[in-house]
Amino acid sequence: MQASTTMKMPSINYDRLATQMESLNAINRLADGSCCRLALTEADRAGRDLVSNWMRAAGLDVRIDRIGNIIGLQPGADRTAPVMTGSHIDTVATGGRYDGTLGVLAGLEAIRTVQESGLTLARPLCVAAFTNEEGVRFQPDMMGSLVYVGGLSVEQALAATAEDGTVLGAELQRLGYAGTFPCGALRPHAYVELHIEQGPILDREGLVLGAVEDLQGILWKEIVVTGTSNHAGTTPMNMRRDAGHFAAQVVVFVRELAERMGGSQVGTVGALRLWPNLVNVIPRKAVFTVDLRNTSDAELDEASSALDEFLEELSGELGVSVETRQLVHTPAVKFDSRIVATIEKVAQSLGQPARRMVSGAGHDAQMMARICPSGMIFVPSIGGVSHNPREDTAPAHLEVGANALLRTLCSLAV
Amino acid sequence: MQASTTMKMPSINYDRLATQMESLNAINRLADGSCCRLALTEADRAGRDLVSNWMRAAGLDVRIDRIGNIIGLQPGADRTAPVMTGSHIDTVATGGRYDGTLGVLAGLEAIRTVQESGLTLARPLCVAAFTNEEGVRFQPDMMGSLVYVGGLSVEQALAATAEDGTVLGAELQRLGYAGTFPCGALRPHAYVELHIEQGPILDREGLVLGAVEDLQGILWKEIVVTGTSNHAGTTPMNMRRDAGHFAAQVVVFVRELAERMGGSQVGTVGALRLWPNLVNVIPRKAVFTVDLRNTSDAELDEASSALDEFLEELSGELGVSVETRQLVHTPAVKFDSRIVATIEKVAQSLGQPARRMVSGAGHDAQMMARICPSGMIFVPSIGGVSHNPREDTAPAHLEVGANALLRTLCSLAV
Repeated sequence: MQASTTMKMPSINYDRLATQMESLNAINRLADGSCCRLALTEADRAGRDLVSNWMRAAGLDVRIDRIGNIIGLQPGADRTAPVMTGSHIDTVATGGRYDGTLGVLAGLEAIRTVQESGLTLARPLCVAAFTNEEGVRFQPDMMGSLVYVGGLSVEQALAATAEDGTVLGAELQRLGYAGTFPCGALRPHAYVELHIEQGPILDREGLVLGAVEDLQGILWKEIVVTGTSNHAGTTPMNMRRDAGHFAAQVVVFVRELAERMGGSQVGTVGALRLWPNLVNVIPRKAVFTVDLRNTSDAELDEASSALDEFLEELSGELGVSVETRQLVHTPAVKFDSRIVATIEKVAQSLGQPARRMVSGAGHDAQMMARICPSGMIFVPSIGGVSHNPREDTAPAHLEVGANALLRTLCSLAV
Repeated sequence: MQASTTMKMPSINYDRLATQMESLNAINRLADGSCCRLALTEADRAGRDLVSNWMRAAGLDVRIDRIGNIIGLQPGADRTAPVMTGSHIDTVATGGRYDGTLGVLAGLEAIRTVQESGLTLARPLCVAAFTNEEGVRFQPDMMGSLVYVGGLSVEQALAATAEDGTVLGAELQRLGYAGTFPCGALRPHAYVELHIEQGPILDREGLVLGAVEDLQGILWKEIVVTGTSNHAGTTPMNMRRDAGHFAAQVVVFVRELAERMGGSQVGTVGALRLWPNLVNVIPRKAVFTVDLRNTSDAELDEASSALDEFLEELSGELGVSVETRQLVHTPAVKFDSRIVATIEKVAQSLGQPARRMVSGAGHDAQMMARICPSGMIFVPSIGGVSHNPREDTAPAHLEVGANALLRTLCSLAV
């Protein structure tokens, strides 16, 4: 890293970063402490206004692209492929303070620090706040970065419709964030994103920094089981076609499958409903989801096939009919090995050895990895909690994370 | 049976019975064919008006007691303990045509037949339509018969409040069925109820009549499991406290328990809800019910203890907390062995051998069994379906059932 040999590496201004995070999180804060800035709502607009103004105040050239991504560029980024950082500022309905916010504001803080310190880098830096990462009102999630890398056409994304009939493009217009900059016109030299882990590993192991190597492939299935409703008292056990009992066996199987496969395989049944859902009626219908994740696409396929086989065998055995629909299939992502190594070196220089790790959550970085070498830095989530007002990270860890981002960006920009 | 030795036993008039059943079921019939006469609604009043007028037209003295039970008495019932039959005319929200209705109207038809045929019996007959057997709006179910036998005070029953705040006593007043006759003042010599099986056994075995020996004891538990919500991707399998996975294991256990115990033991998880019930979030909370039934109270206790032990072991193992609440505990009922034998003899005389059987559903007869020798006659439910517009019984079987009721009442009244 050339810069560090010629001058002392500067540090970010944590107080300034913390103040901006608090200002952003004060928008539509709920009574229980939740941050509620669903993408393309008035709260999101207020957040966008703050962030784009802070970018301008830092001397960055702000571009809004056609899907509403906000990109703050250092001068020269149009001529020389910049090193990009970023994340998102939208939240789930009961979001925490740092999920996404940290990556955008620490990125901005890093660029400000570079500018103030007079560091000269070979490449300009830029920071992006991607539209609708959470995917709560409009699907798919990670939409802004997905469109940015060409994985979804901007026309399809603008036509996305919420359950209440609202169309995404119309919301962007209404909020004043229907930009004209072509999506993905700026192709970065590299992309690095700082994010909270949203899992328990760093916190449990007492570590401060994670260098993310892999991002799990994700497979979501919805399973609809149809049996026969019958009286819970009068129907002998051997004459039942109990859709709820079928679903329960699948829940148990999914757990056993993940434990048997080991490695990075996880499996979850998060949503389950029964009909008619009455104490004394054998369920005639069950609808539930299965969420399978693995850093290996081959192993994820294996888990998926094992589930399908189990469903088929069991449906024959229990005499119920089963329909399976794939809701989501995102392949696994391997982040750039040189960026992972850079993050490790930077962590070492900060006295905080980085743990190589897997991301179980989806992030904008996984989309950016399709068009440029990409990587991610994690800081701990206390207790692994996220998407919850109890989501938290120690201030000292946020500060180390932001400095690690600063040094990684500088390293990649020389 | 003295009467049958002195004259030919008369038969009920099936066309008249069928016409009255159709008239009653035409009230608030839904588009899908469901009968919807929830207790103490306008539809129930319309049904009560029809039935009490038919009782009067048959020359019976109609008494409305304080809980709204409608009792049609042959002359002399105040002096000599009568033989009683009956059932209920209220339905669930999507009820069938014969659940309850058959017992009341076939009972009335039997009395009419006795009167028209000039049969002289030693004891008068009477027929009751008990209030709120289904327990949909107001709990507990089988309320009218429960109050009749002194199992619940009339004051408590009148104070029963629906989810919308409606009070049962006020509804009785509004509908004109808040009677003054003291509940249970009339103590029958015996009670016999004709009902559809609501289970599949007679239909499956091609039989027409059932002589009910036992009514299952019922135990309902509600189980609330509290674990920890977490991200489905980032939380390792061994760090999960998954309330949904716990619930699923209990569903599987309940099934295995019933199968292992065998005999009359059945077990059902009919209702189950998860929180937050999202595809990518590990459930933090599950609430579900367990319905256990057995004709032996000792075995039912054994099943209940086995479940409690399993809950305790598993909660320790999975690190979730579990609260259990008993919603219902109705002891098993043994019907009077002489009445069961009488029903068998009557069935023989009709050329339709009766199958001795267990009732898996609750019935007013189980309450009446507390104060007098009681019994039940079942006719088949096609496919075992009930509480459903597809509930059905062949007309020929309804007719045999009504004649069996007639002969049993006569037999008991000599």
